[in-house]
Amino acid sequence: MSRRLRPTSRGSRETGFVQPPFAAVKNPMAPLEPISSDQVEVIHHASLNILRDVGIKVDSKIARKLLHEAGADIDDDTARVRFDPGMVEDMLIGIPSEFTIHARNPDKTLTVGKNAMIFATVCGPSFVSDIDQGRRQGTREDMRNFVKLAGMLNIFHHEGGSGCEPMDLPPETRHLDMMLAQTTLTDKGWQPCWLNSAERARDCIEMAKIALQTDDEGLRNKPGIIGGINTNSPLLLDDSQAEGLIEFARAGQPIHVTPFTLAGAMSPVTIGGSLVQQNAEALAGIVLGQAAAIGAPVFYGHFTSNVDMRTGSPAFGTPEYAKSVLVSAQMARRYGLPIRSSNTTASAVVDAQATYESDMSINACINGHVNVMMHAGGWLEGGLTCSFEKLILDAELLQMQAAFLEPLDLSENTLGLDAIAEVGPAGHFFGTSHTLERYEDAFYRPILSDWRNFESWHEDGEKTATQRANAIWKQLLRDYEKPPIDPAIEDELEAYVAKRKTEIPC
Amino acid sequence: MSRRLRPTSRGSRETGFVQPPFAAVKNPMAPLEPISSDQVEVIHHASLNILRDVGIKVDSKIARKLLHEAGADIDDDTARVRFDPGMVEDMLIGIPSEFTIHARNPDKTLTVGKNAMIFATVCGPSFVSDIDQGRRQGTREDMRNFVKLAGMLNIFHHEGGSGCEPMDLPPETRHLDMMLAQTTLTDKGWQPCWLNSAERARDCIEMAKIALQTDDEGLRNKPGIIGGINTNSPLLLDDSQAEGLIEFARAGQPIHVTPFTLAGAMSPVTIGGSLVQQNAEALAGIVLGQAAAIGAPVFYGHFTSNVDMRTGSPAFGTPEYAKSVLVSAQMARRYGLPIRSSNTTASAVVDAQATYESDMSINACINGHVNVMMHAGGWLEGGLTCSFEKLILDAELLQMQAAFLEPLDLSENTLGLDAIAEVGPAGHFFGTSHTLERYEDAFYRPILSDWRNFESWHEDGEKTATQRANAIWKQLLRDYEKPPIDPAIEDELEAYVAKRKTEIPC
Repeated sequence: MSRRLRPTSRGSRETGFVQPPFAAVKNPMAPLEPISSDQVEVIHHASLNILRDVGIKVDSKIARKLLHEAGADIDDDTARVRFDPGMVEDMLIGIPSEFTIHARNPDKTLTVGKNAMIFATVCGPSFVSDIDQGRRQGTREDMRNFVKLAGMLNIFHHEGGSGCEPMDLPPETRHLDMMLAQTTLTDKGWQPCWLNSAERARDCIEMAKIALQTDDEGLRNKPGIIGGINTNSPLLLDDSQAEGLIEFARAGQPIHVTPFTLAGAMSPVTIGGSLVQQNAEALAGIVLGQAAAIGAPVFYGHFTSNVDMRTGSPAFGTPEYAKSVLVSAQMARRYGLPIRSSNTTASAVVDAQATYESDMSINACINGHVNVMMHAGGWLEGGLTCSFEKLILDAELLQMQAAFLEPLDLSENTLGLDAIAEVGPAGHFFGTSHTLERYEDAFYRPILSDWRNFESWHEDGEKTATQRANAIWKQLLRDYEKPPIDPAIEDELEAYVAKRKTEIPC
Repeated sequence: MSRRLRPTSRGSRETGFVQPPFAAVKNPMAPLEPISSDQVEVIHHASLNILRDVGIKVDSKIARKLLHEAGADIDDDTARVRFDPGMVEDMLIGIPSEFTIHARNPDKTLTVGKNAMIFATVCGPSFVSDIDQGRRQGTREDMRNFVKLAGMLNIFHHEGGSGCEPMDLPPETRHLDMMLAQTTLTDKGWQPCWLNSAERARDCIEMAKIALQTDDEGLRNKPGIIGGINTNSPLLLDDSQAEGLIEFARAGQPIHVTPFTLAGAMSPVTIGGSLVQQNAEALAGIVLGQAAAIGAPVFYGHFTSNVDMRTGSPAFGTPEYAKSVLVSAQMARRYGLPIRSSNTTASAVVDAQATYESDMSINACINGHVNVMMHAGGWLEGGLTCSFEKLILDAELLQMQAAFLEPLDLSENTLGLDAIAEVGPAGHFFGTSHTLERYEDAFYRPILSDWRNFESWHEDGEKTATQRANAIWKQLLRDYEKPPIDPAIEDELEAYVAKRKTEIPC
């Protein structure tokens, strides 16, 4: 309980912003499981049948060669790879069920897997939004501001991909600027945005080595970054994704394989069918990771949602999404693998819809023991937009979950039986010593919620939670202090970026 | 799955409003349990010790006499009642663990208990609000409009207490107008607002008899209303609540006993201590119900939350609230009793905060197998305000939960393995027969969410979910059709109300 209300040095008088310190989150309760273990086997065997009979198209020749050596059946003319079920089962043995990600600040090093989970901020959006300027293309400044905020908000364990794409920078070298921001503006663990080539994966690894002052062997023993690839559903693994995966697996950096299965479009119109296809594609990628480096920490990725069959738009944070999170987590447990999922919404604005879709996603992740929650802060509009107010809202949603997961204290002193006897019928507890000893740290302290009475809220301008979030992130940016970094490390990171910018043709 | 998207006759072209039909909701998954069975016993025994050593003040002489006859220790001078633990344990045996509530429309009769849950709209607020007129005192017209909407929204199983108090009607007879609205404007099961005297409880029972065309014996065999009382925490049961409880227990109508335990004010500043006190007060009321009528369907009420120790305001929908819901549900299961809790928020406005606090409450209720969710639709501002937009938002939140609880179909045809083989790598599923056969009913259809792309949303005026909710409830009211009622029954209800208005001094 003591972690609750202790104000951090980031407390601000203007916004009343206080937050619990950085801490690991574990779910001590049993996971929610919507399907039986027999049904888990139904999905498993159906996906093995797909891998055997239909197979996966693997564009990368390097990847096909590795899979061939591992025992898969290869047709180089069609790039089709088919997998014997026994070979898949064998390759699933011995993959780590948890891993530790080492941060530049050792206090922010965390173990992930089993019932331990981490929350990482959004990656990927081209747009950025706030209620002052609305939705617009992301810039280097937006990207850097987002990274600063992701670092300041203790509930986010990882900077998940630098928020928005800096669209004012050249696409060929943008990833270097994003990683420079991640490695210098925060001291947390970080996740590069999507690995879309072996070369970019290598840049991530080189910068992690500099940031953590280690070499290839040291980074393999003490991983510093979590990567991820998507399959191009249905049943396609393209060059860039396959080779990024191989690079990460060989470097011993944890990486998830996440099929892009939007039911009705890239996978069957049923959640059951989409989960079978997701499972087949995820297993194919995991097998490739093992073919590249036996025992590499390759893990299970979930993204299955559906398209709205009326508009063709993707839907997120729906009942189907929640079920698919929980069932995917059952599949990952079946394989003894960590799982990643996401905090998602299709809403274009930080309103009730954004909140309930995110809440549906987050609850499924928490109740399913999802180990890596990507896009946990700032995702809006199906991932097209990174929102500063949404980042603050998500911090509140996740802080509430973390407090909810803290075990209830039922020790004798805590129960206050003497206080109940002392107060007796029709009294109140404000003045009891039991209350006075505990009131400061007794309850969750929100960053965003306004619990004052109507009159106080009215006199203060009738602000919505979204308007309050706007004031909070702006104040946080004013309060930002760069975490300490050895100037030699920063110079080395900058030199790496400068050198690579001369090497990469724009 | 077939219940999903079938449009009801209430479909409206102007708002696109469709909803699944009225249906029971059951949670097929195991409940979430934050504490161990040993810890359940800690709370149980601590509360028995309070009942034995401190006791409860019971103002009603009638109630004290019943408790004395049941074996409790009575001090008439102080109105203090102390309970022997063995006597409490004995009285807990044989109380029904489920009950059926018979509605005027037999299709809306539902069994409640175990993993079956019902959602009932808000009761109690003096204020009403919508985004057109803001917050104001409730009127007869607001009350009747709210009852109509509660009846039209299929996800609400019960009209829970007519929304707002009609403050323009005399307080002495207002309950009659509220019950007249409940019994004539909807055909669902209904819950009278709080029972604050034996006489009002009797009015409820008499009007239920008329509405259901039955007599005392018939109503006892086929209950028609769910009642509830609060204890005046700490440790006080006042005249009106005790005697309302006795009246309902004797009439065989299900009634919950809900302690008003706001941690830090009316109960200890710890959730553990507040749950012990809640349990003691609930057991005292349940024992009184049994003393009045052995085997009466008296059940467990949860309301424990906390006050914000900085402002003194009650906080709702917090991490502590969610934990207290789940633990209370564990206590109720320990006693084999149904449990009621609520969908709560302290927000003054239908914004992100209202949504995440309601979501936290709802998720705890769903995951705890709470059987009666009171205030499930329309509650705002700690229960002081009934909001029309919140009612629509809550309908969406609950519909999503109901869809989430529907078992995942993993039958062979559903999985679409042939479609996966047919589409193959890099194709799409839009045109497959598997998709065409299923797309209309494939996925949850929201009433409020906007999933269109940014441009469409922008061109349509950038409406928030709350603004869309406003359009929906107004359109619903325009579409309202009174459910069929035998004119003779309606005449009889009106005559009862008229007669009672001449009898009750205003």
